[in-house]
Amino acid sequence: MKAMILGADGYLGWALSLRLLARGHDVVGVDNFATRRSVKEVGSDSGIPILGMEGRIKAARDIHGYKMKFYKGDITNYQFLHKAIKESRPDTIIHFAEQRSAPYSMINAKHASYTLSNNVIGTINLIYAIMDVDPKIHSLKMGTLGEFGTPNFDIPETAFVDATINGKPDRITTPKWAGSWYHWSKVHDTNNLLFANRVWKTTVTDIMQGPVYGTRTKEITDEKLHTRFDFDEVWGTVVNRFCVEAALGMPLTAYGKGGQTRGYLSLEDSVEALRLLLENPPEKGEYRVVNQFVELLSINEIAEIVRKAAKKLDIDATVEHLENPRVEAERHYYNPEIKVLPKLGFHRKLKMADLAVQLIKDVLPYRSRISRYKAAIMPHTNWRSIENAR
Amino acid sequence: MKAMILGADGYLGWALSLRLLARGHDVVGVDNFATRRSVKEVGSDSGIPILGMEGRIKAARDIHGYKMKFYKGDITNYQFLHKAIKESRPDTIIHFAEQRSAPYSMINAKHASYTLSNNVIGTINLIYAIMDVDPKIHSLKMGTLGEFGTPNFDIPETAFVDATINGKPDRITTPKWAGSWYHWSKVHDTNNLLFANRVWKTTVTDIMQGPVYGTRTKEITDEKLHTRFDFDEVWGTVVNRFCVEAALGMPLTAYGKGGQTRGYLSLEDSVEALRLLLENPPEKGEYRVVNQFVELLSINEIAEIVRKAAKKLDIDATVEHLENPRVEAERHYYNPEIKVLPKLGFHRKLKMADLAVQLIKDVLPYRSRISRYKAAIMPHTNWRSIENAR
Repeated sequence: MKAMILGADGYLGWALSLRLLARGHDVVGVDNFATRRSVKEVGSDSGIPILGMEGRIKAARDIHGYKMKFYKGDITNYQFLHKAIKESRPDTIIHFAEQRSAPYSMINAKHASYTLSNNVIGTINLIYAIMDVDPKIHSLKMGTLGEFGTPNFDIPETAFVDATINGKPDRITTPKWAGSWYHWSKVHDTNNLLFANRVWKTTVTDIMQGPVYGTRTKEITDEKLHTRFDFDEVWGTVVNRFCVEAALGMPLTAYGKGGQTRGYLSLEDSVEALRLLLENPPEKGEYRVVNQFVELLSINEIAEIVRKAAKKLDIDATVEHLENPRVEAERHYYNPEIKVLPKLGFHRKLKMADLAVQLIKDVLPYRSRISRYKAAIMPHTNWRSIENAR
Repeated sequence: MKAMILGADGYLGWALSLRLLARGHDVVGVDNFATRRSVKEVGSDSGIPILGMEGRIKAARDIHGYKMKFYKGDITNYQFLHKAIKESRPDTIIHFAEQRSAPYSMINAKHASYTLSNNVIGTINLIYAIMDVDPKIHSLKMGTLGEFGTPNFDIPETAFVDATINGKPDRITTPKWAGSWYHWSKVHDTNNLLFANRVWKTTVTDIMQGPVYGTRTKEITDEKLHTRFDFDEVWGTVVNRFCVEAALGMPLTAYGKGGQTRGYLSLEDSVEALRLLLENPPEKGEYRVVNQFVELLSINEIAEIVRKAAKKLDIDATVEHLENPRVEAERHYYNPEIKVLPKLGFHRKLKMADLAVQLIKDVLPYRSRISRYKAAIMPHTNWRSIENAR
């Protein structure tokens, strides 16, 4: 199989590139390095040092014998994307090339506008480039379970659901309620992809993923192969942030009451799920929706997992509840279906409770590096403010 | 009242400017003249000649004594929009400044991307500029009934509805299913405006309007005051197009079976409804949804109305059913609520059957002008094609 990975320099993009190369697939990466710049913009950096793209590709060749092709460029430039796809002729395109931070999108007008425009236009360009080069290409889009918010219904793995609206039955798109411009950009993407599928019979896997945490996959056997690891309030997911806080001897910063529940999964499990979805594409013209996570956990449960893990390393971590900078329900029903991945043979490898010790250990050698960005850990970006100081 | 009209050079924008000036309100117009350029781009022009903005403003002063301020610029430029609002300090901002053609959005990748980006970013900029200058400003956003598609439920005038999803009750955003990138851009706008309302308590009127037709309002008393009149397949609504076809002795070009039903209203009724909504704003922090139309008609019914009107002018118009270039249901349930406008005292002035003769008469003097653009009347833009020749 030939796979093109848009956003191949990112946290998931690089880890997935290695996994697919390990499986013997041809991999073509695309990236404009926007995440590297945007993380620096908020006064942070990858907690674990990473090589530049050229260095990474060379390391993957030297260490594992992998060969990977790469295009540097921005997919919001239609000509660039079209040329890359036309030259490469992939069977599948995995689309990670979006601004992926909710807080970043809420900083101010400029960041809101950048997030919406970058994400929506990148996806529209992908739709058209695929239709023009080869409508049979399977596109696999990274969405988020955050598109649904925290509804009272069970989140299905279907694009449409049967519903009764004011007493009348209808089939509607699965209802969404997002909690940031970032999350809304993903909802807009989903709607656009679904419309294209209905008009042009494109073949799509729309992945509704929960937050991913961790530093390792089985191919990351050398520090030259590390994928980026973000921990600050803007770019780090809560688990990675808590582990860094524990490693630095800081309190774990839980937002609000801590009842916020999401579906989490490790980097290794995410990469393995993605591999399965790529190697088992949907039918031609199908729009496949996949909920991707392995365990439902609340913020309080995660804090407890990290606190216990730290304890095993002789670190006494305390939990500090901060005023929630986000606008979100702090107690709610949450039940996303998960049927598609198990049917493809997916089994969770790691629970968070098993991985947390390892994660803190992986961070410990970089404490002095991470300390330089300590100011970026506490929440600065408040949802209620339209101009967040930076 | 001081009203700012974004898109003041457009079909509705100019007509509403005159109405508000006639009511003694201060009016500040904003436009980048994109519609003038985009109509020319597809080989067409306003069927009825119109003056440039300077000429129109002068004519309004000379004829009616109206004084209107105007900013030339693009609201996707945040600094420009922010400055215009800060200097003007309007009580209300009416947002018409969007790419408003469904076929234009479906031409190709470039037009899809322009439509989504122009519309979504303009609205996001408006949200932020209002929040920064004065959160109390009432914004009145022109959406479309097309956001809902043709659902089996009765389209309510509420942003949220009670629904049962797979047996579980929840309150969800009123389901949408749009039929073009243009319509989707309006859905994205609605979602973005609603999210901003929930986080920042903005005061919004979201107007779900049906197609508007006609050439006149009571202030358009002189040909120097004409508002633009589009009739081609890209920019003309079906009624205006049928009347032009009748005037030129062409068959009326109905798409598909002709059972497609929408809620129509005349330009005069649209402008009067908008005036009422502006002069009767919602509560501070309220998100008011308004369905704006006066009669439900199918394409076949409209063709019959125009055919009969033409007959009265001794024109024998025939109806030709063309293969539908759009992807849409041609027979369907359709029942949008209409409660908000009647409560404000809105009464329909004109039915289409009463206005059609006048409309054809208004077009007749411009037959030779319009004939130059005859090639732009027949459908070129096919929804199923991703690269429509132009």
